[in-house]
Amino acid sequence: VLCGALGQSDRFDPNFQYLFNSYYDAVGARHARPERGLLTRPSLKSVLDYRAHIDARMRAALPEIEPGSTIYSLIELGLNHEQQHQELLLTDILHLFSRNPTYPIYSEGYEQSPPDKAPLTWSKFEAPGIVRIGHDGKGFAFDCEGPAHDVLLHPFELANRAVTNGEWLQFIEAGRYDNPTYWLSEGWACAQEQGWVAPLYWQKTEEGWASMTLHGLRAVDPAASVCHISYFEADAFASWAADNLDGCEGARLPLETEWEYAASDQSVSGNLLGSGALRPEPQKDQALSGLFGDVWEWTASAFKPYPGFRPAKGAVGEYNGKFMSGQSVLRGGSCVTPKGHVRATYRNFFHPDKRWQFSGLRLARDI
Amino acid sequence: VLCGALGQSDRFDPNFQYLFNSYYDAVGARHARPERGLLTRPSLKSVLDYRAHIDARMRAALPEIEPGSTIYSLIELGLNHEQQHQELLLTDILHLFSRNPTYPIYSEGYEQSPPDKAPLTWSKFEAPGIVRIGHDGKGFAFDCEGPAHDVLLHPFELANRAVTNGEWLQFIEAGRYDNPTYWLSEGWACAQEQGWVAPLYWQKTEEGWASMTLHGLRAVDPAASVCHISYFEADAFASWAADNLDGCEGARLPLETEWEYAASDQSVSGNLLGSGALRPEPQKDQALSGLFGDVWEWTASAFKPYPGFRPAKGAVGEYNGKFMSGQSVLRGGSCVTPKGHVRATYRNFFHPDKRWQFSGLRLARDI
Amino acid sequence: VLCGALGQSDRFDPNFQYLFNSYYDAVGARHARPERGLLTRPSLKSVLDYRAHIDARMRAALPEIEPGSTIYSLIELGLNHEQQHQELLLTDILHLFSRNPTYPIYSEGYEQSPPDKAPLTWSKFEAPGIVRIGHDGKGFAFDCEGPAHDVLLHPFELANRAVTNGEWLQFIEAGRYDNPTYWLSEGWACAQEQGWVAPLYWQKTEEGWASMTLHGLRAVDPAASVCHISYFEADAFASWAADNLDGCEGARLPLETEWEYAASDQSVSGNLLGSGALRPEPQKDQALSGLFGDVWEWTASAFKPYPGFRPAKGAVGEYNGKFMSGQSVLRGGSCVTPKGHVRATYRNFFHPDKRWQFSGLRLARDI
Amino acid sequence: VLCGALGQSDRFDPNFQYLFNSYYDAVGARHARPERGLLTRPSLKSVLDYRAHIDARMRAALPEIEPGSTIYSLIELGLNHEQQHQELLLTDILHLFSRNPTYPIYSEGYEQSPPDKAPLTWSKFEAPGIVRIGHDGKGFAFDCEGPAHDVLLHPFELANRAVTNGEWLQFIEAGRYDNPTYWLSEGWACAQEQGWVAPLYWQKTEEGWASMTLHGLRAVDPAASVCHISYFEADAFASWAADNLDGCEGARLPLETEWEYAASDQSVSGNLLGSGALRPEPQKDQALSGLFGDVWEWTASAFKPYPGFRPAKGAVGEYNGKFMSGQSVLRGGSCVTPKGHVRATYRNFFHPDKRWQFSGLRLARDI
Repeated sequence: VLCGALGQSDRFDPNFQYLFNSYYDAVGARHARPERGLLTRPSLKSVLDYRAHIDARMRAALPEIEPGSTIYSLIELGLNHEQQHQELLLTDILHLFSRNPTYPIYSEGYEQSPPDKAPLTWSKFEAPGIVRIGHDGKGFAFDCEGPAHDVLLHPFELANRAVTNGEWLQFIEAGRYDNPTYWLSEGWACAQEQGWVAPLYWQKTEEGWASMTLHGLRAVDPAASVCHISYFEADAFASWAADNLDGCEGARLPLETEWEYAASDQSVSGNLLGSGALRPEPQKDQALSGLFGDVWEWTASAFKPYPGFRPAKGAVGEYNGKFMSGQSVLRGGSCVTPKGHVRATYRNFFHPDKRWQFSGLRLARDI
Repeated sequence: VLCGALGQSDRFDPNFQYLFNSYYDAVGARHARPERGLLTRPSLKSVLDYRAHIDARMRAALPEIEPGSTIYSLIELGLNHEQQHQELLLTDILHLFSRNPTYPIYSEGYEQSPPDKAPLTWSKFEAPGIVRIGHDGKGFAFDCEGPAHDVLLHPFELANRAVTNGEWLQFIEAGRYDNPTYWLSEGWACAQEQGWVAPLYWQKTEEGWASMTLHGLRAVDPAASVCHISYFEADAFASWAADNLDGCEGARLPLETEWEYAASDQSVSGNLLGSGALRPEPQKDQALSGLFGDVWEWTASAFKPYPGFRPAKGAVGEYNGKFMSGQSVLRGGSCVTPKGHVRATYRNFFHPDKRWQFSGLRLARDI
Repeated sequence: VLCGALGQSDRFDPNFQYLFNSYYDAVGARHARPERGLLTRPSLKSVLDYRAHIDARMRAALPEIEPGSTIYSLIELGLNHEQQHQELLLTDILHLFSRNPTYPIYSEGYEQSPPDKAPLTWSKFEAPGIVRIGHDGKGFAFDCEGPAHDVLLHPFELANRAVTNGEWLQFIEAGRYDNPTYWLSEGWACAQEQGWVAPLYWQKTEEGWASMTLHGLRAVDPAASVCHISYFEADAFASWAADNLDGCEGARLPLETEWEYAASDQSVSGNLLGSGALRPEPQKDQALSGLFGDVWEWTASAFKPYPGFRPAKGAVGEYNGKFMSGQSVLRGGSCVTPKGHVRATYRNFFHPDKRWQFSGLRLARDI
Repeated sequence: VLCGALGQSDRFDPNFQYLFNSYYDAVGARHARPERGLLTRPSLKSVLDYRAHIDARMRAALPEIEPGSTIYSLIELGLNHEQQHQELLLTDILHLFSRNPTYPIYSEGYEQSPPDKAPLTWSKFEAPGIVRIGHDGKGFAFDCEGPAHDVLLHPFELANRAVTNGEWLQFIEAGRYDNPTYWLSEGWACAQEQGWVAPLYWQKTEEGWASMTLHGLRAVDPAASVCHISYFEADAFASWAADNLDGCEGARLPLETEWEYAASDQSVSGNLLGSGALRPEPQKDQALSGLFGDVWEWTASAFKPYPGFRPAKGAVGEYNGKFMSGQSVLRGGSCVTPKGHVRATYRNFFHPDKRWQFSGLRLARDI
């Protein structure tokens, strides 16, 4: 922004464009991703100086920038992008700490949740018909959230809350990590190859299942939403639940369009980063709730362009469009998503084998 | 069928169930796929004896089987499945021969096609609205072709013919195997890792581009449909064509629903296996044509269950449902698809990096 | 030989030089080794025709060739090389059949060996001093067997026979496949990675240990020499035996020079290919015996050039010299080595993790 | 030492034994090596506190320990082991910095060497006969340096100095990285796979060849010893030099026994860590010199036990014995070896493909 759109020329360090280019082919050469862990320079001090350098220049430049201009939009995109990294920092810290045999604690002050939770109920959407999906362009949204367009929805119902650890324990105890029935072929191969026997970060202790969290290693809470599961596990769970879990006959994962339609009149609040919980918590509401925050909810939908979508030209065009293959859509944000960052049209996406996100699931079914 | 549903007990060889179980978890243990190439026994004679053994018993049993019964449906499924392997045998022979430096010829009697071809035109579908998609259950269809259901289609147009080798040469000459713009991120990574510079089987000779075919190594015919390309290449071509190819502004891959809607009133005929060509041929019709046969056409659609789809119980349930992740849909059959095997609702699917099928593409765009 | 040294020009097929060049950089391009299994052409008939073509021309040419000439030596080398492949064909057939769940039998007519065997005794070499090692150039030898040279040997003793399956079972029962003590670091890593729990081809059946052999799957004979073990296992066994096996205090693998010195006055006979046994057999002699045939004996020596060794120029120079790193020497031949092929100075060599040869071990120790 | 032999019980942190066990199977479980880079805890402060904790206790304990006692020997071994890590820290820092595109400088104060160097001459050892090799047990030595024993050496000569960068440039210009002749088969495969075109850390700049050093990126000095080459390259160079380099007819790598014999009457001094050069420097002496320091010299010898060698029991027994396969011996120390650490009998060893050590070569040949 400073050297490009604003025409400034005093780069802090010419190496930094190369070092800090994460994946933009249009920005030019970049340091190979598997080699990043080998970088012990620039030092922490140098990186903080760089940040101060950029902040000072941005603060000076901002008052001159006209809302709605190209450069304004680019800065707005950058700020939203940084929010994504605020969330990723926490997911990555948890992952890093989980690989450390000393179980470091990121956040002190953990308190046990009360054990009560909401029973599973279903919210009916009996005749949705043709509905409008996608962002209408008022306020900020990422490119992949539009264009807004019509889709035909069939009657469906959606669970009031996400699947809990307690329900997941039933899946484990029914031997579903030991048997390919209900699993996608690639999912089962992945589970075997990686030796999955429970959600990521779970381990068996003498006191039962525990899970690595941002509060260190903690007992698994049966009332809280299950978390750190892959799409493959979410899909296998739903297929198993359809045949085996009381009150869940015919369950499946929701389509992202169903989810968005159901969320469109819900308030964007809940167990987001601002709540300070830093972990999924039990839901207590029998009505449809908790769509925002707590856990990202895997949907049945592949991450594909909406009708009429065209990527922007240049580096910004690499933002989401080039990732539209092989990934599944998640909706709603999690307990580490910054408040104000998420909305009903927001489309997150990950590969179906990924588990390090705060990812869970909510069941749907046909009426 | 014989030992299960028909209760016969004289297995030809008890090892064969293990050896010939390709991927059915419900059928039990099986020989590891990467180890199959090491099997030099049973001998060819033993396999042919086995076939004769099965054929004799099936011929004896068939007159007693009632049309519409479960066992009848299972046999019908088996016959359709065998047709798939008839096609796969030819694709696999071509692949095997292509890795042999002596370029073996599968079929003699090659004749050069006349050089004329149809110019590119567009067929309009101006107000499709809500249309019925999927198989209605009359006659045989694979499980994944149903249930029939309504979808909302937006106005679109479809090219009269598939993309040709001549058009692909423009893509090559424009340097699109050398530049990540227009490629999906995974597609570009795959192309780099595997060193793609042209469709599979193409190689540069002193006389220009040649391609390994079932007729041996032959000059690439610019008028014939391009073939042996991956989804990643098809998608990159369409994105490039949208900006760069004359008459193709705004081009993209068709949705599988658009393709099926357009094909639903076309006759199921064309350059199928029965034609004997064994290779894609130039299309000469300015009207919409060639949807069936010639080349499988990659669509933009992920292979996902239709609303209401539930896999059958047992081994048959593993048929298609467990592959519904990570794959893309192709439509229409190819020059090695047996006649009578394909139909408008037929959904073929492969991973987006696969190129050994007779796979090409046809462009679509919004109106 | 025919087209090069003898100047003939009627090549049977110009592709064959490329196809049949196994690893000679000086001969030019060659088919990639991992791709060889994909070659289904030339046909068996074509290969036999090729052989007949070559045989006819060689028979016509041979009477004119002068003993001792360069071309004579080259043909002699070729014949000895073919003998190596006669042995390799049998080891490879056994390996291939072992991967087939139907356990094919290469040779019928198996007879159980009588159960008696020789107890372990030691032959002393009390003052060897400076001894002559290597081939003196009289008669054929491979390049790596010379030059003959002096080495200083320290006093040692050598076991009268190879280690038996019965002794190996003690090693297994002592848990040595479960514990890194006594193993080389690379050996233990290899054993873990490949899941070794016994020699190659061994498997546990309801009747006890059985082993795949050229006679099919057979019970392991405790009196016969252990076979199909790697250098890593041989070394671990010797280190373990030194501390734990009765009568074997201080045991180790012999140096190749010790082995050759001990073998130099033994007759070159024993359980070689001509015996027809096609498997190791119990030894019955309390004196030093069985050095030739039965099993190749791993030595402690790395395969390195003898003092003054220089590879020949050209393709023949690639024969052994270029493999002089990372391999260990084996001595004496096995039950599938053609008679007349082996001698006291013969140096075979394989990587220390290889187990598909008929490879065993004989213990030595310092006096 | 403190908790074991000295019976102290106040462990600083019980996790540290697990975290800091590098490879000792006898010490118990350990953190997986590929996972070590993920450890961000314990913090630097915690590690320094640990060091202070240990140092204080060791200082208190040392006056009570009797020279020659088992615990005394163990501490002596520990101190020599720490010296090895002092050297490895520098080699690893250089490697890490070399992967950083900003070329960090470890040590300022670089000065250009004068361009003169010694011409290549040969020192003759005309009748060595039976010589004593290995450490006699007076003063400290690692286990693998003994037992002292007799070997028979044939007449040889040794170059006065190591091979220089200038001579290596001739090897490069003669195309030896482009042609398999003179390379070991595994060496050539390794060079191809890893894309070697010059020693490690060399890169082509506009001003010619430069090399990453502890002083940052610097022009290659033709007069200095070549460094950061593998055994495979050293061997290929020697084979090439034997046929092609003036004054080097018949050159080869020395045996470790030849090297030790030649070094046994040389003073243990030279360009070691204490010199502060931190890089190889030109040698100026026409007599045999520079055997100690400057660069580790690859020998032709595999790292194998000396006659009569037996590893110690327990963890100390894992010190060197378990690495006696697949590695080659280097002799003499380098410019980053602490003074007092090296001696004529010292045997260093690395795999033949490793290049990150300060490793070079000195030529030998038969007389």
